[in-house]
Amino acid sequence: MATAGKVIKCKAAVAWEAGKPLSIEEVEVAPPQAMEVRVKILYTALCHTDVYFWEAKGQTPVFPRILGHEAGGIVESVGEGVTELAPGDHVLPVFTGECKECDHCKSEESNMCDLLRINVDRGVMIGDGKSRFTIKGKPIFHFVGTSTFSEYTVIHVGCLAKINPEAPLDKVCILSCGFSTGFGATVNVAKPKKGQTVAIFGLGAVGLAAMEGARLSGASRIIGVDLNPAKFEQAKKFGCTDFVNPKDHSKPVHEVLIEMTNGGLDRAVECTGNINAMISCFECVHDGWGVAVLVGVPPKDDVFKTHPMNFLNEKTLKGTFFGNYKPRTDLPNVVELYMKKELELEKFITHSVPFSEINTAFDLMLKGESLRCVMRMDE
Amino acid sequence: MATAGKVIKCKAAVAWEAGKPLSIEEVEVAPPQAMEVRVKILYTALCHTDVYFWEAKGQTPVFPRILGHEAGGIVESVGEGVTELAPGDHVLPVFTGECKECDHCKSEESNMCDLLRINVDRGVMIGDGKSRFTIKGKPIFHFVGTSTFSEYTVIHVGCLAKINPEAPLDKVCILSCGFSTGFGATVNVAKPKKGQTVAIFGLGAVGLAAMEGARLSGASRIIGVDLNPAKFEQAKKFGCTDFVNPKDHSKPVHEVLIEMTNGGLDRAVECTGNINAMISCFECVHDGWGVAVLVGVPPKDDVFKTHPMNFLNEKTLKGTFFGNYKPRTDLPNVVELYMKKELELEKFITHSVPFSEINTAFDLMLKGESLRCVMRMDE
Repeated sequence: MATAGKVIKCKAAVAWEAGKPLSIEEVEVAPPQAMEVRVKILYTALCHTDVYFWEAKGQTPVFPRILGHEAGGIVESVGEGVTELAPGDHVLPVFTGECKECDHCKSEESNMCDLLRINVDRGVMIGDGKSRFTIKGKPIFHFVGTSTFSEYTVIHVGCLAKINPEAPLDKVCILSCGFSTGFGATVNVAKPKKGQTVAIFGLGAVGLAAMEGARLSGASRIIGVDLNPAKFEQAKKFGCTDFVNPKDHSKPVHEVLIEMTNGGLDRAVECTGNINAMISCFECVHDGWGVAVLVGVPPKDDVFKTHPMNFLNEKTLKGTFFGNYKPRTDLPNVVELYMKKELELEKFITHSVPFSEINTAFDLMLKGESLRCVMRMDE
Repeated sequence: MATAGKVIKCKAAVAWEAGKPLSIEEVEVAPPQAMEVRVKILYTALCHTDVYFWEAKGQTPVFPRILGHEAGGIVESVGEGVTELAPGDHVLPVFTGECKECDHCKSEESNMCDLLRINVDRGVMIGDGKSRFTIKGKPIFHFVGTSTFSEYTVIHVGCLAKINPEAPLDKVCILSCGFSTGFGATVNVAKPKKGQTVAIFGLGAVGLAAMEGARLSGASRIIGVDLNPAKFEQAKKFGCTDFVNPKDHSKPVHEVLIEMTNGGLDRAVECTGNINAMISCFECVHDGWGVAVLVGVPPKDDVFKTHPMNFLNEKTLKGTFFGNYKPRTDLPNVVELYMKKELELEKFITHSVPFSEINTAFDLMLKGESLRCVMRMDE
C-alpha cells in the first residue's frame, strides 16, 4: 500500500488520565518494525478490562494511553520477518500472544506464551521498548499490545489471528477477548457432557459466553448466579433455566445450589473475580465428578480456601486464561463456528456507536446497560 | 461346599482395644445374607490405614474389631441375590464398593459409590446392621466392610472384584488398596505424558506406587520428596531420579522444586496427608499445564489455601479416592497388567509372615521398615 513504510496520521481515542473521558486526537502511527504488523482497525468493542485500566484503581497508572483490545481489522503493512501475514489479511488482535516457539506454545496443554503473555503494565512494543504512537512527536503508551481505539495500530505478529476474510468484522471482533474467554472456559476446560448441569457465576458478557458454551454442549440445566435480578431475563436468551440470587438466601449460595441439584452441579464456571464466588463455585460441584473453573481475576491479596477433602472426594478445580485458546492457532476455528451459524454472537452486541462516541460506550458499560458496544471506526 | 449355609469357626486377629496387640481368636463367621459373600482369605497385607484405626487416635474407637482390608481370597459361599460370583471364584476385597446402580457407579467419571462408599465408623453389614462375626455369641465389629484379618470373612458382593484365577493371590492381594490408590492417582488422574517431569510427595507404599505409575508412563524425571533420607535408596528401584528433603533447604520445598525444573513440575502427586505438603504439591507444578493430585488424607480441620491466580495461570488441582478405580470394573484389569508383567508388585512386598505373627507386621510398619508385609493365612 502507498502508506507502507510511512508514518500514518489518523484518529485515536486517547486516555490522558485515569477516569477522565477519552479524547479523540490525531495521532502519528509509526511503521511496523521487525515482527510487527500495522493494522487498520474497522471495528472495536469495549470490554470491562479497558474500563478497569482506564479507572486505574489499584492498577499501575500508565497514561497517556490508547486503550482497546477487542477488535477486527485488516493488515495495512508488515515489518521485517513477518511471513504469516500480508497486507489485506483480516485479523483479530489479541491481548495475549502465541510466539509458537516457547515451551508454552509448544505444549498442547498451555496457551500462556512466555514471550507474549499479557502484560498490563507495559505501554511499549517488546521489540525495542518504544511506542509506535505519538502526538506531535510525544509518545503515547500502548495497552496490552493491541491499542485498538485507533484507526491504525501496531501489533506484534504473535498477537494477531488471521481469520476467514468473509467473516463480518463487526461481529467477530468480539471474539478477541470476552466471548472467547467465557466460551472457552466452558467448552475447553469445564467440558460439560450432554445432559449435565452447569452453574455460571456472574452474568456479564464473559459469564453469558460461558453460558453459551453450556447451551451448545447440551447442558440439561443452566443455573445463573448473580446479585442483580435484572440479569435473569437477558440470561434466558443464553440458555439460562434457573436463576439464583445469593441475596435471596440466608444460607451460603453453594448450599442452595447443592439442594437444587440433588448433590451438586456437574460443572460450574466463575466469571466475577470475587473470592467468595470462587469458593462457592468450587463448593457447589458434585463429588465424584464435579469440575469448577475459575475465570474472573481476583484482587492480588485474596486467598482461596477450602477443605482438602473436597479434592479427595474427586472434585476438580481449574482456572483458565483466555478460555485456553491459543490465539493464532485456535481463534480462526472459533470464527468458523460463527460462520457455520453455531455461535450466536449477535446476542452479545447490544449496542453500536460511531468511534467518535466512544465515551457513550464507556457510559453504557459503567451503567451495566451494555454487554458489548461495538464502535464503527469509519464514522 | 459343605460349609455353605453353616456357621464357620476359624481363626481371626481381634483388636480388643486401641493400640493393644491383636489377639488370634477362634471366631464364628455367620453365613452370608442377601447380596453378601463369604470369602476364604488366603493372603492379607497390612496397610497403614489398619494401623491408623487400630491406634484410633482422633478416630471413633470401634472395638472389639477385626481389621484388615488388603487381601486376596476365594469365594466359599454366596447369599441370596448374588449372581456375579460363585464358590471358587478368586476375589480381591475392596474397602469401597461399586453397586453399579447409583449415580456415581453409572457415571464414567466417579468411583464413589453412594451405597458402598467407605465408612470407617460402621462396624456392621449394611444389609441388616449386624455383624457376621461373633466370639461365643458376642458380636465382633467389622472394618470397612472387609475385615480380612480372618480366615473367613463376609463381604458385600459390591466390594469384591472377581479376578483371573491364575493370578497369584500372595502378590495381587496388595492391589486391594495401597498400590491401586497410588498407581491410579498417577495413571488415571495426573496422567503424565511421556517425557514429562513428576514429583511424588511421600515415599511410603502409596507414594512408591504413584512413582511406579510415573515410571510406566515414561516420565523423564521423577523427583521424590520425603523427610526421611533413607527412603531415597529404596525409591530408586521405583524410578526415582532425584530426591529432595525439605529439611535440607531453608526455602519452601516448592521453590526448590521449581528451580530444579526450570519453572515447575509437569505433574505432582501428594501421598502424605500433610497439609503443607499438599500446598507445596500444588505450588510446585508448572503454570500453563501443571496438574497436582492429592491422595493423602488430611486431618479434619486442615484448610487448603492458595492464591487464586495459581488457577487462572492454568494449574489444575485434583484429588483422588482409590486411584479413581471402580473396584469391580477396573481392578480385574489392573491384575491383568501384573499378569502381563507390566507391574512389578514384588518390589512392594518387603516382608511376609505367618498370620499368627500379625503383630510382627504391625511392628515392621510402625518402625517404617516395611512397605508391605503379606500374611499367609494358612500358617
